[in-house]
Amino acid sequence: VTVHTGLLRLETEGELQIVDLTEGVLAVVRQSGVTGGLVGVFVTGSTAAVTTMEFEPGGVDDLRAALERLLPPSDAYAPGGSAPDTGASRPVTPERGADTSAHAHLRASLIGPSESVPLVGGRLVLGTGQQLVLIDFDDRPRAREIHVQVVS
Amino acid sequence: VTVHTGLLRLETEGELQIVDLTEGVLAVVRQSGVTGGLVGVFVTGSTAAVTTMEFEPGGVDDLRAALERLLPPSDAYAPGGSAPDTGASRPVTPERGADTSAHAHLRASLIGPSESVPLVGGRLVLGTGQQLVLIDFDDRPRAREIHVQVVS
Amino acid sequence: VTVHTGLLRLETEGELQIVDLTEGVLAVVRQSGVTGGLVGVFVTGSTAAVTTMEFEPGGVDDLRAALERLLPPSDAYAPGGSAPDTGASRPVTPERGADTSAHAHLRASLIGPSESVPLVGGRLVLGTGQQLVLIDFDDRPRAREIHVQVVS
Repeated sequence: VTVHTGLLRLETEGELQIVDLTEGVLAVVRQSGVTGGLVGVFVTGSTAAVTTMEFEPGGVDDLRAALERLLPPSDAYAPGGSAPDTGASRPVTPERGADTSAHAHLRASLIGPSESVPLVGGRLVLGTGQQLVLIDFDDRPRAREIHVQVVS
Repeated sequence: VTVHTGLLRLETEGELQIVDLTEGVLAVVRQSGVTGGLVGVFVTGSTAAVTTMEFEPGGVDDLRAALERLLPPSDAYAPGGSAPDTGASRPVTPERGADTSAHAHLRASLIGPSESVPLVGGRLVLGTGQQLVLIDFDDRPRAREIHVQVVS
Repeated sequence: VTVHTGLLRLETEGELQIVDLTEGVLAVVRQSGVTGGLVGVFVTGSTAAVTTMEFEPGGVDDLRAALERLLPPSDAYAPGGSAPDTGASRPVTPERGADTSAHAHLRASLIGPSESVPLVGGRLVLGTGQQLVLIDFDDRPRAREIHVQVVS
């Protein structure tokens, strides 16, 4: 087998909470026993995203403020807006006009749900001031699933 | 062989058309016979992008409006602007000053051309309200090629 | 072995310098001898990003201007701001209040550090007017490391 799969489960608070995924991803890598390959990290759902950043309080505040400014939680978008992100285990029931998370969908699509990080000599090639993070844009707490795929 | 390749061909209308790629990607995955791996999705060309979103009319309208607002199709950028995206099969002949798709290039670079989705137990780990989409930012119809690479 | 690793080292000037990585990535691919697979490209550090674009002067100017406009180098963000990106080989020593690169961190997180490009028949499936680029957002020159992982 050349593919190792890991699943990280998180309870998030939504509202632009940013969570450091690095240790969780490293745990999957260690468990795989693989020392060289490509590590795919992907969040399920349309109101969250994965990227890298320096995970420290000032940087977290900055990124939250910038995203609030670029894509504000207003109703300034198209009438109706997006349906709530119902996650993986529930059917989609769009309720046009009842949506409060349209901005969450936009932010998630802009940042994107995946990153792929090379694994070289047993370590991810992240900088010391660079962490893999989940950003949860939803307007309510969520149970999140992040899939980690180690391909070697 | 541990790599399976698929090519999706689409005729798009440009002008921020958003196309659901999920079924096409799944068809490549099924044809590969692979049940676990990493699936890379990549659009060729510099005026289109790949991301995920809840593909329903309100969300599509919202994303189009947000991108028009963030990166408007004005000539407010550097004089000359980008050359037209001539696609894969024609030579690049930049015509400074004649460009009408500078904003398309910017939007495409911001969203990015690729996503990598884990394949676990024969299914992509997308949410029920999360589809893989192509966004075509060009200002004219295009023949698009999206490459799907299943690595296992 | 089904994973081939390459490391590109660049001296960048920061301040939104954009560097064409395509030839460097292709050199790693050629050296690997692989003709089909997925090629992951990842920049180490939290003030740089990887994406694709048509790499010509007008497009480079446009992208620089758009990012300056969307995420300006002001102190308009949260007090304190992000710590300087100290790269991979030095310890992180956040100096709150002394930071001049907060906007660099935001831009890097928005674009993201990785792209994955299919390799088919010995060539990357980039368009003729589509290059893999590094964008260095830092406010000073940097020694950058870009990891290229060929998975086949």
